[in-house]
Amino acid sequence: MERRSFLKKTGVGIAAGAVAAPAIAQGLPEIQWRLASSFPKSLDTIYGAAEMFQSRVAAATGGKFQIRVFAGGEIVPAFSVMDAVKDGTVECGHTASYYFFGKDPAFALDTAVPFGLNAREFNAWFMHGGGKELLREFFAGYNIMNFPMGNTAAQMGGWFRKEIKSVKDLDGLKFRVGGFAGKVLSKLGTVPQQIPGGDIYPSLEKGTIDAAEWIGPYDDEKLGFQKVAQFYYYPGWWEGGPNLSLYINQDKWKALPEEYKNIIEAAAAEANVDMLAKYDAKNPDALKRLVAGGAKLRPFPRDVMDASYKAAQEVYAETTAASPAFKKIYEAMVKFRDDQNLWHSVADGNFDRFMQTRKR
Amino acid sequence: MERRSFLKKTGVGIAAGAVAAPAIAQGLPEIQWRLASSFPKSLDTIYGAAEMFQSRVAAATGGKFQIRVFAGGEIVPAFSVMDAVKDGTVECGHTASYYFFGKDPAFALDTAVPFGLNAREFNAWFMHGGGKELLREFFAGYNIMNFPMGNTAAQMGGWFRKEIKSVKDLDGLKFRVGGFAGKVLSKLGTVPQQIPGGDIYPSLEKGTIDAAEWIGPYDDEKLGFQKVAQFYYYPGWWEGGPNLSLYINQDKWKALPEEYKNIIEAAAAEANVDMLAKYDAKNPDALKRLVAGGAKLRPFPRDVMDASYKAAQEVYAETTAASPAFKKIYEAMVKFRDDQNLWHSVADGNFDRFMQTRKR
Repeated sequence: MERRSFLKKTGVGIAAGAVAAPAIAQGLPEIQWRLASSFPKSLDTIYGAAEMFQSRVAAATGGKFQIRVFAGGEIVPAFSVMDAVKDGTVECGHTASYYFFGKDPAFALDTAVPFGLNAREFNAWFMHGGGKELLREFFAGYNIMNFPMGNTAAQMGGWFRKEIKSVKDLDGLKFRVGGFAGKVLSKLGTVPQQIPGGDIYPSLEKGTIDAAEWIGPYDDEKLGFQKVAQFYYYPGWWEGGPNLSLYINQDKWKALPEEYKNIIEAAAAEANVDMLAKYDAKNPDALKRLVAGGAKLRPFPRDVMDASYKAAQEVYAETTAASPAFKKIYEAMVKFRDDQNLWHSVADGNFDRFMQTRKR
Repeated sequence: MERRSFLKKTGVGIAAGAVAAPAIAQGLPEIQWRLASSFPKSLDTIYGAAEMFQSRVAAATGGKFQIRVFAGGEIVPAFSVMDAVKDGTVECGHTASYYFFGKDPAFALDTAVPFGLNAREFNAWFMHGGGKELLREFFAGYNIMNFPMGNTAAQMGGWFRKEIKSVKDLDGLKFRVGGFAGKVLSKLGTVPQQIPGGDIYPSLEKGTIDAAEWIGPYDDEKLGFQKVAQFYYYPGWWEGGPNLSLYINQDKWKALPEEYKNIIEAAAAEANVDMLAKYDAKNPDALKRLVAGGAKLRPFPRDVMDASYKAAQEVYAETTAASPAFKKIYEAMVKFRDDQNLWHSVADGNFDRFMQTRKR
């Protein structure tokens, strides 16, 4: 206590000793970075995580470390963010790595794969289950450092023009769904469609497609799908807890002072938990409004879930045979996931089920 | 880019301009704080959150902001931490505020109350559901600033010497359980017992008590309860997601430079998500070992859950009548909780249930 009070009054201390040293040693450097987000500002919860992150980093460094955030397409096309980070065109990016699973399916494992981890399990796997080491080894091969920075929680299964009564109704269905989920659903006869977010509504309205998945109540509501496809299915088993990450070019990362590295790691973790909290706070009211506006909420029939799970195992067998990186990370993740599901079915699952079904 | 490269080469910039200024302006102050934890080092997951926090703060400030962590009883008795922070005896503490519900029952709402929030819901409520504003208003009355810093997830219901077949078996049961849960269980005839952690095992062994709750598999295993009380019940409905917080003396908080305040907030959020992740990673193997060692895993019968829920509502009616602070915060929390349970029963609940019960 004495010492601190002395420092305050006199201004003497470590800082004083540095007066005669070169200027650079007297404080941390001014740094300006650019962060390319893959997301539009209209997805305020996802895009907002990058804003929260940069704001914390700036405030924690007295404004010396400034990270300017650009929405998808502003300086880098949404689906080129990973390459831009790898090549150092931008210092960092915020994206869903499963967009890049065409390069290697292992990219999907840093976001979500069908019947994968939920939001809480992803954090547990990454932070204390070996996920961090496996994923960082993979991304190092692309000259990238990765930090989890947001999760939407389990997504919805999407908007369907007709009711899905059994797995047979998926046969021939033109469904706007991408990536791994599309591969799985193809095995059940579904015809996956790749359509940008802005084109989904007119496609559903005209009947060019039969169904479309987007995110969850809060984001879906903005696009008004309930007016043209009333059956709103859950869960989006292909995205049980999609993780968005901060990706940093390794050379830029290594050049940072230790203080800035530590601030980045803590600020990314904060934005990570904050995005999930924001979605949780916003989704219930949006869901109520959607239902009041005509959305018909339906769980996928059990035979759809079982057939999809079975089809997913076929896709995983093919994918692990094709990509050694995928095989290595996926198999570790599955082992961890199965243990998590065992434990979560006990105290948490039982508590949650009681709270969800209690008589009031 | 040009500017940054120029800065690096010449060392000219804001720092250089500060050479002639008073030394204190050239860098942030050296500060040393003491953090009093209520927890023993043997609870490495809970105690470890404070260690992780101090380590990040130190590294993010180049070692200038040092926070020394003391285990419960080392410099402040475990159950005096809140007072010590309030009075400025220590700058900050890490504890479960429900230990202090004797001062005002509202203290319990920053940790857990029976049939309250799960871990994810607590974060959502605090960060984006109005919980932060309500709880900070309450703690400001005690000259304290609060930040969530860890969650154990839903705890187990505890170790019972005899099987609980219906709510009648709770009548006359001597159960080591404290606080709000004890009040609720008293209404069902249970006789709550207050016994320190180290004395639970011999009390169970001798039959001085019939049952005891502690935390969850990872921590319970260390104390060996399965040897003397084999029935291991779930869930601990009185702790569906207990939050531990960092509490800082307001005067000390206000005196911090903005940079340090920002670093504290991010580092506490990081330790918050990290503790939950660590418990999730450690609990499944511990549970398997306990069951292999003879523990008989049982859910509380539905009539026990229903009767406990009903008794809890009676306690809440009494408590809201007695404490205006409790009433204000509790009613806002309940409204938020009910919306969360609605939403979580849809995409997340459905996904989790499928994953927990799927045929492999």
